[in-house]
Amino acid sequence: MNPFSIAIHGGAGTLLKGQMTPEKEENYRKTLENALSAGFEALNSGKSATDVVSLAVQILEDSPLFNAGKGSVFTAEGTHEMDAAIMEGKDLQAGAVSLVSGIKNPILLARDVMEKSEHVFLAGTGAMNFAKSLGYTLEEAAYFYDELRYQQWQELKGTTHFQLDHSKSKETKESKFGTVGAVACDKYGNLAAATSTGGMTNKNWGRIGDTSIIGAGNYANNATCAVSCTGSGEFFIRGVAAYDVSCLMEYKGLSLAEAAAEVVHKRLMNIGGDGGLIAVDTQGNVALPFNTEGMYRGLRTSTGKSIIAIYGD
Amino acid sequence: MNPFSIAIHGGAGTLLKGQMTPEKEENYRKTLENALSAGFEALNSGKSATDVVSLAVQILEDSPLFNAGKGSVFTAEGTHEMDAAIMEGKDLQAGAVSLVSGIKNPILLARDVMEKSEHVFLAGTGAMNFAKSLGYTLEEAAYFYDELRYQQWQELKGTTHFQLDHSKSKETKESKFGTVGAVACDKYGNLAAATSTGGMTNKNWGRIGDTSIIGAGNYANNATCAVSCTGSGEFFIRGVAAYDVSCLMEYKGLSLAEAAAEVVHKRLMNIGGDGGLIAVDTQGNVALPFNTEGMYRGLRTSTGKSIIAIYGD
Repeated sequence: MNPFSIAIHGGAGTLLKGQMTPEKEENYRKTLENALSAGFEALNSGKSATDVVSLAVQILEDSPLFNAGKGSVFTAEGTHEMDAAIMEGKDLQAGAVSLVSGIKNPILLARDVMEKSEHVFLAGTGAMNFAKSLGYTLEEAAYFYDELRYQQWQELKGTTHFQLDHSKSKETKESKFGTVGAVACDKYGNLAAATSTGGMTNKNWGRIGDTSIIGAGNYANNATCAVSCTGSGEFFIRGVAAYDVSCLMEYKGLSLAEAAAEVVHKRLMNIGGDGGLIAVDTQGNVALPFNTEGMYRGLRTSTGKSIIAIYGD
Repeated sequence: MNPFSIAIHGGAGTLLKGQMTPEKEENYRKTLENALSAGFEALNSGKSATDVVSLAVQILEDSPLFNAGKGSVFTAEGTHEMDAAIMEGKDLQAGAVSLVSGIKNPILLARDVMEKSEHVFLAGTGAMNFAKSLGYTLEEAAYFYDELRYQQWQELKGTTHFQLDHSKSKETKESKFGTVGAVACDKYGNLAAATSTGGMTNKNWGRIGDTSIIGAGNYANNATCAVSCTGSGEFFIRGVAAYDVSCLMEYKGLSLAEAAAEVVHKRLMNIGGDGGLIAVDTQGNVALPFNTEGMYRGLRTSTGKSIIAIYGD
């Protein structure tokens, strides 16, 4: 049996100890623990990495705490446009959706694109028509309504400002990147990565970030690693960040930890990119580097490691 | 002065000698020559690689012969949905648009995303609203009408079949990938890549191919190369093909020709990908590999090389 492991994230940014109430922090930790333990138990019972990353991301999408699925932020039009991607390392199959509204779990739709279409990437109303053709029902706007998110939008509505998730004010540097993701190595040595986001508050113009772009925000390859990113998406696209980790391992012989650190602390920072990523290799090793103050994150391995954390150390 | 060069492509696929009338072949060669010589003269007069790849792709978009801009194929709804991307190697700036309709030159809109927005990738009606905010006027559907393209669509309309450009019949393997692209190395040693496509006949579901995805169909980096791809887009996305060429050079020390050949003849073929790419490095070297029978292509260098070709040799 291969050593197995899972890692998850719920976004990165200016997360400083003492900024949250203890109750709120406890809520975040509890939701991360739910996703992590559900994923780990599934791995332990022999589920595939693909099943496990879908499951963990679905749990995070169903929480109002993270900017993905139910907790998605408001666009400039007061709607919710979500992106998601999934990839499996065994045969490099992938599926992604972008700019979809009313879909409860965009990660499941991304998986259906991978498994039930001849395409990799569907977007907008077309992607929603694909969902309807499979029998998806659309959630009412009320499902995605959250008072805090709505207030965040009201602060920006009518302006040309937009924010990556919920930074404190439009005057401060956009500093919180709400995206969720999971990577896993299963008992059979197969890897998978899944990522999902609700985008940016007051976003317009049909902006697509790194989340749904294979190679940028999400990538998996059994020859190297599985990666899910969170951060200033434009920089992760320009840096082709997720695939960069894989190439540094495959072509330059770096370890998972070395490759992940090189991308987050050097390659991305050289072009101004903020954020972090989670990554696993086929030996079940895990890396969780970030160049921001904090990242909602967790990992659990069959060799007994278990971490849930928010702040930098 | 740095040696300078340009390469262009107009798609790849089952292009066999004798299938086209001599007149039609002459038309293709003439349009390729127009784009190539305009680009080369611009390089010679000191224009930037970014200006040059924009110009060359614009000329190809304006021709009805290629599946991009004016020559775009019909979607399942009888519309034209186009994708384009541009990237410059100096500081890894990039811009891309997807699923835009009525835009005469999608490559210019992609460039405006790069230069006039804080984003990299805009899609659908949002991208068109961005265009309108910059004063773009939308072309009438008649501008994109072409009798041949329309007939190709009629053959597939109402079915679930779709085709990559205009393969001969829906029974044959989809075998012609109509996309246009240009890569250039300018007098200052800066690189740029631009790619534009009209997608697939009878396409639905808002499918996005590799063209508009930075790292998949288009990439430029002064540390390595500039690349523009054409082929079965889903495979180029899963292979992160354009960035793969760059990584093989940067991390494994391969030459441009070796890296480009490795991606087209090995990495892509291993997962079933058909097509080709054009690439230049900062010494003005050019590679034009393809694994299909032919690729509309051309190159011209300051060291005196000049080629326009369609078929394999």
